[in-house]
Amino acid sequence: MNKIDIDSYRVKESITLNTAATFENFDADDAKLKKKLEKIRRELGEFQDVLYAHGKYSVLMCLQGMDTSGKDSLIREVFKDFNARGVVVHSFKVPTALELKHDFLWRHYIALPAKGKVGVFNRTHYENVLVTRVHPEYVMGEHIPGIHKVADLNDAFWEKRFEQINNFEKHIAANGTIIFKFFLHLSKEEQRQRLLRRLNLKRKNWKFSPGDLKERKLWDRYQECYEDAINKTSKTHAPWFVIPADNKKAARLIVAETMLQELKKYKDIKEPELDDKIKANLEDYKNQLEKE
Amino acid sequence: MNKIDIDSYRVKESITLNTAATFENFDADDAKLKKKLEKIRRELGEFQDVLYAHGKYSVLMCLQGMDTSGKDSLIREVFKDFNARGVVVHSFKVPTALELKHDFLWRHYIALPAKGKVGVFNRTHYENVLVTRVHPEYVMGEHIPGIHKVADLNDAFWEKRFEQINNFEKHIAANGTIIFKFFLHLSKEEQRQRLLRRLNLKRKNWKFSPGDLKERKLWDRYQECYEDAINKTSKTHAPWFVIPADNKKAARLIVAETMLQELKKYKDIKEPELDDKIKANLEDYKNQLEKE
Repeated sequence: MNKIDIDSYRVKESITLNTAATFENFDADDAKLKKKLEKIRRELGEFQDVLYAHGKYSVLMCLQGMDTSGKDSLIREVFKDFNARGVVVHSFKVPTALELKHDFLWRHYIALPAKGKVGVFNRTHYENVLVTRVHPEYVMGEHIPGIHKVADLNDAFWEKRFEQINNFEKHIAANGTIIFKFFLHLSKEEQRQRLLRRLNLKRKNWKFSPGDLKERKLWDRYQECYEDAINKTSKTHAPWFVIPADNKKAARLIVAETMLQELKKYKDIKEPELDDKIKANLEDYKNQLEKE
Repeated sequence: MNKIDIDSYRVKESITLNTAATFENFDADDAKLKKKLEKIRRELGEFQDVLYAHGKYSVLMCLQGMDTSGKDSLIREVFKDFNARGVVVHSFKVPTALELKHDFLWRHYIALPAKGKVGVFNRTHYENVLVTRVHPEYVMGEHIPGIHKVADLNDAFWEKRFEQINNFEKHIAANGTIIFKFFLHLSKEEQRQRLLRRLNLKRKNWKFSPGDLKERKLWDRYQECYEDAINKTSKTHAPWFVIPADNKKAARLIVAETMLQELKKYKDIKEPELDDKIKANLEDYKNQLEKE
């Protein structure tokens, strides 16, 4: 199969979602894609062991995408060879009353992965410039000082949020968090097919919510907000990758390969050396055990 | 291979660790054990999806065992087919200053899995009647009202802790947490071999700590404390299973099979039904999407 050029998905200057690919298959069949993914995730699993032992960096994977874009199954498949010990997934839903009593980044901040761990945000702090921008009435519930009516949620308000998000990411990156941001880019037609499948397959019915159809009506507005958010927050230390998501197997493969290639650049991540003093006495310790 | 009789590992009345098996292989080779484990963990993975969707129970797996008993690799292997989204592993180490400002169960309480999730405690609240009992000097750092000197840590003190632990587990079980407690029962000789391997294999060296040898000297005292703890806290709603741990592959298999057999008893855990009102309108929703 074709080589995966991860830079072709990376947002460097800016992107137009309208023309960005939503389908990829690398001229390979499902079986080939699956086999390749298995190989990559084994390597990722090995890297994770070293990351954990090294204990100086953490990895944060941010996952965004429209309903049915495959976020949950991607998490299941990509992290299969990770030690569960070192992965922490947070699925962010509607903020709770407690969370709303804090600023919009607070609940994300306290969910950040500890050093040595991989954190996955399933939906992320970006929802604060996505769902809340599409539905300004939601933001009004957040009691932000100076925000008293929907009209206050003007361009300047959203620019401020982008700036705050950029500062947040800059700060955690400078303190040892390796950040990946993936947008699972789904076509509107593929979403229609996936929703119909939920409705048609009895055992998938329970996943359906009428709200999915309401949000679908706002598709274009969501795409606008995604595009704006991605273009204003893709940085070298916290890049966005726009992943064609109509083919789930290819999407998982690109995400896994992107993480692997990027993480391999951190040559200083390695298993710790034994303390010199302990090293000097290794033979003694061996003798103690051997003569028991 | 022989059928796995999970009840033979369950502590019903009481157990004597001295005579309990530390080795098991089911008359099967490694390859067979591995294959069987793969089958069980796929079934566990499927169960987990349903547990998550159902969202009314949580599962808490408590894992205890001496150094090198294989806790970490067991977690890696048993949960491989779980969706990382639904598993939360907490490795409890020496309590932090903040944790010591709370009662000894606090840090475990706040780490409990949410409904729908599987929580793994890698070392658990039982360390409060194990390492702290073997080393009473550690407990003294906890500033417990009325405890002023090592002599205060008498039998009555430990009985009180067992009672508190039992009450804690009774409470969370009654509120929907399915509890498993596994003791990885390692022989002293196998630990010696595993420590020697750490010392002899250069790439495993960094895992070695001289403290391991110090704790090993207290082996018999640890076994006593384990036995007492297990016998005083094995309850129907929170049973202990004593797992022969000298053969890692068999140990993982027994743990996985135990969870699977026990979880299958919860016949009420199933995917949720669609709300009646939504069900009544399913055809409408389909039409909306189909005529788009």
